[in-house]
Amino acid sequence: MAGRAHTTELRVRYAETDQMGVVYHSNYLIWCEIGRTDYIRALGTPYAELERNGVALAVSEASLRCHAPARYDDIVRVETSLTEVRSRTVTFDYVIVHAGTGARLATASTTLVSLDPDGKVAALPLDVRDFLAGGTR
Amino acid sequence: MAGRAHTTELRVRYAETDQMGVVYHSNYLIWCEIGRTDYIRALGTPYAELERNGVALAVSEASLRCHAPARYDDIVRVETSLTEVRSRTVTFDYVIVHAGTGARLATASTTLVSLDPDGKVAALPLDVRDFLAGGTR
Amino acid sequence: MAGRAHTTELRVRYAETDQMGVVYHSNYLIWCEIGRTDYIRALGTPYAELERNGVALAVSEASLRCHAPARYDDIVRVETSLTEVRSRTVTFDYVIVHAGTGARLATASTTLVSLDPDGKVAALPLDVRDFLAGGTR
Amino acid sequence: MAGRAHTTELRVRYAETDQMGVVYHSNYLIWCEIGRTDYIRALGTPYAELERNGVALAVSEASLRCHAPARYDDIVRVETSLTEVRSRTVTFDYVIVHAGTGARLATASTTLVSLDPDGKVAALPLDVRDFLAGGTR
Repeated sequence: MAGRAHTTELRVRYAETDQMGVVYHSNYLIWCEIGRTDYIRALGTPYAELERNGVALAVSEASLRCHAPARYDDIVRVETSLTEVRSRTVTFDYVIVHAGTGARLATASTTLVSLDPDGKVAALPLDVRDFLAGGTR
Repeated sequence: MAGRAHTTELRVRYAETDQMGVVYHSNYLIWCEIGRTDYIRALGTPYAELERNGVALAVSEASLRCHAPARYDDIVRVETSLTEVRSRTVTFDYVIVHAGTGARLATASTTLVSLDPDGKVAALPLDVRDFLAGGTR
Repeated sequence: MAGRAHTTELRVRYAETDQMGVVYHSNYLIWCEIGRTDYIRALGTPYAELERNGVALAVSEASLRCHAPARYDDIVRVETSLTEVRSRTVTFDYVIVHAGTGARLATASTTLVSLDPDGKVAALPLDVRDFLAGGTR
Repeated sequence: MAGRAHTTELRVRYAETDQMGVVYHSNYLIWCEIGRTDYIRALGTPYAELERNGVALAVSEASLRCHAPARYDDIVRVETSLTEVRSRTVTFDYVIVHAGTGARLATASTTLVSLDPDGKVAALPLDVRDFLAGGTR
């Protein structure tokens, strides 16, 4: 992985459109979740396993810019990069493009905070931090 | 309550529409959830409290008929009835109407199965069964 | 295709879970939509093209039975069959299984009604009917 | 209205939670949509009517900070302010609080761009601009 983006492809669902005939914007954040799930899996351990081991990552900040609309049945590509690993947070950036034309549809960034099993903010265990940081090198 | 329907009103969200210009059908099941939540609350104990006390009700069967489309910004009325309480299941029926015109938009039925905190099917505790059955008398 | 089921695989999204720790039931209907979209595409014409040509298929009836919970990050398989084509409606059946274990998670059926561009119920054009019926032979 | 926030209350749906036991973050953006819909309605013309008259407002930028989790069955309050009206865009800010405790759950901002009926960016008609600006005075 080492500092490179991980790419996920998905096809736009009818349920994700709205009456403007395009994808409703909050769905981009769900696509970002898919992107970072795949990113973490590609590092070697699925996020589901991190969570079973007591480390939850909850979105604390998100920003989104919509450049062009995604439409039903389009195949879109989510390019996910891990841009920062700190003691309690990790930040991912995303570029979402139309797979057919390469047009940039949206860019986004999310910061996730590490929570312990009681839902309290907690330092990331060192091994998890190293594991994630592997993606930024 | 005693055998009568409980009525909930809600306004259609933009996010609930799709590119056909009407509400995407799976949202009706979410409105049913709101209807039965309000129904149970009206019996005297919120469902959230049942769940904190170890009784979860999970949808095991659902059926839905869509008669006319609901549209963005419509106010719709969900009329919820509890039609059956058995040892492990409860069944709710729903009629969804347009609040302005009274037009019938959808009818639905869901059966929920009682789960213990480990997610296993379990008999409803007698007090919960009596509590719910209060709504059918 | 000829009467056989079409299979689609998808991975459960975090956004699709609820606080019971499993997939919220209305998402199964969205997975069914994905299944029939892929089914129709496999017949040779994407549903998106049917819609651009003025034939919309709207869900008028849906039924769902949940047998076992789907969980975050599971890969599930949606097996879609077209079971009936009538002058104004088509019916699809679905079996949703856990791809890893083969366990049956849910079964569903949806009937869709043909709408013209004004949203009125209309007979399916004969060529569309033949096209869809190709899947049942 | 005149520069003051408009307040909307809503109850958290089970469907909006995830397996972390709290509201899935993308739902905050949907609550913001509800907030600004109510804000615009309070100015005197529902957004639905603007759209029927050919003025669509599509989210082009969104930012979100999650301060504390919202939970199932909580009543939350969305306080919406219109902070800027420009020739082609409008910006709304949101504060989402727990209605019972007043705790701040999330803050957000969205910028919406004016689209004509073909989905092209277009200047806001002057009367719509004046209408919206009424909320900032």
